[in-house]
Amino acid sequence: MAQFIRNIFSTSEDDPISLFDSGVGGLTVLKVLKTYFPYENFLYLGDTARLPYGTKSPDTIRQYLDQCIHFLLKQKVKAIVIACNSASSVFGSLYNSYHLPIYDVIKPGAQNALATTKTQRIGVIATRATVSANAYANSIHEINSQTQVFQQACPLLVPLVEEGWIDDPITRLIVYRYLNPLQEVSIDTLIMGCTHYPILKDSISKVMGTHVQLIDSGEAVALNLKNDFQKEKIIPRSMNKEEGKIHLLNTDLNPQIQIIAQKILSPFSIHSFQHVDVNTI
Amino acid sequence: MAQFIRNIFSTSEDDPISLFDSGVGGLTVLKVLKTYFPYENFLYLGDTARLPYGTKSPDTIRQYLDQCIHFLLKQKVKAIVIACNSASSVFGSLYNSYHLPIYDVIKPGAQNALATTKTQRIGVIATRATVSANAYANSIHEINSQTQVFQQACPLLVPLVEEGWIDDPITRLIVYRYLNPLQEVSIDTLIMGCTHYPILKDSISKVMGTHVQLIDSGEAVALNLKNDFQKEKIIPRSMNKEEGKIHLLNTDLNPQIQIIAQKILSPFSIHSFQHVDVNTI
Repeated sequence: MAQFIRNIFSTSEDDPISLFDSGVGGLTVLKVLKTYFPYENFLYLGDTARLPYGTKSPDTIRQYLDQCIHFLLKQKVKAIVIACNSASSVFGSLYNSYHLPIYDVIKPGAQNALATTKTQRIGVIATRATVSANAYANSIHEINSQTQVFQQACPLLVPLVEEGWIDDPITRLIVYRYLNPLQEVSIDTLIMGCTHYPILKDSISKVMGTHVQLIDSGEAVALNLKNDFQKEKIIPRSMNKEEGKIHLLNTDLNPQIQIIAQKILSPFSIHSFQHVDVNTI
Repeated sequence: MAQFIRNIFSTSEDDPISLFDSGVGGLTVLKVLKTYFPYENFLYLGDTARLPYGTKSPDTIRQYLDQCIHFLLKQKVKAIVIACNSASSVFGSLYNSYHLPIYDVIKPGAQNALATTKTQRIGVIATRATVSANAYANSIHEINSQTQVFQQACPLLVPLVEEGWIDDPITRLIVYRYLNPLQEVSIDTLIMGCTHYPILKDSISKVMGTHVQLIDSGEAVALNLKNDFQKEKIIPRSMNKEEGKIHLLNTDLNPQIQIIAQKILSPFSIHSFQHVDVNTI
């Protein structure tokens, strides 16, 4: 991985918390963060010109991750959240290379699942990239090697969300087919290991039943950020100010993306949409 | 669109016919060409690091098209086939800018549909990009302004093919939902306006019925090439030589792509797979 420019410019409480994802999925993480930290400003980068990441190889994803982090470091931000499981799965342990906090979604999700399970049988649904990288299983086994992890790649769930077929019988059929093997192995906790999946939470919950706890990466990351605010690793924005703003940058900006983005973030408003040339990141 | 390097190096009959697509869909075109011209060599570029194109905006697709053509012009090829409808839909009328034949899939598909329809009622299924560009409707109306064209975007069909759910009840349900509006308007000809769709030909045919003729872009392009071989616009490779070879280049090379590629091209063999860094095209 290339050397990154160190972000030595971020000193103001008004600097945004930045997030990035290949597309709109990471907005589910942004929505949770906005609920927890309403006074913070947020800058979200969606690499929509090259989405999805989840069907691509580790080398390609690493190259895109490198470029996106590099780009965000230049934007004067006070923290970076890799709001994409596929990108998080190739991020590894590079946290210490940076002078600002960087969060991925794998580790918090794994910790949260381990705190939830009673039977030590955890399921993971994710993209093919995240499953192939064995990212959640490795992260869980680093903490508890006895836990059994059952993984299932669900490549069609991302395009279904992007098509807007959320509360839909066809989507439920597909969810059922993907989740069926996990029903048979009696898990008690299921990690939604792709930031698109919380949008399908109702369908997933209906198929798995209420005895299976669903783990949402967004919630898990928010708790980690809350902790770092308390430890003063991140400067909080004052609550005396007006509510924070949400700015979206996209490497491909089309009307469909804007509609879905607003739908996912509702009831929160997006302050601006802006196009960024993919060759400049 | 940027200036392209002119391909002044291609003189040998052994030079390949090149094709490109965002992913594996264009291989359906390659398969037809290989059947028509078994002694030709083929070079296929799949821009898999940035697939799909069909959900992206015209500006982004134009940028990728520009880069792919530029790259192929440097590879010593004797013709270029844009084996991707979304890319073809932004190609426009740039044919005369090049010193070698360049084929898109829209115009041949439109001509073929017009030669087939008896009722002047033609349906088009395609990606959102191709439908938004109105590419087939414009191309058909240039020839016959009286023909009625009914378009339907089918964004989920590409990921279904890439997931390998070809002969599958869920795929048939989705095909049925997308095609239902076209059944109601009594078309007699349907253009499969995305190079992935011929893989779903059986499902599409079952839903539409045998009275609706399906138009495959690959077949249409092959007839145009055959015509240009006869007019000596392309130098044919001698039939005294051994059978031609198929070389695949991909900007992202992963095992899933290789499996699907071989499945689509079967019974033909792929002579080599090679990775090309997306930053070099």
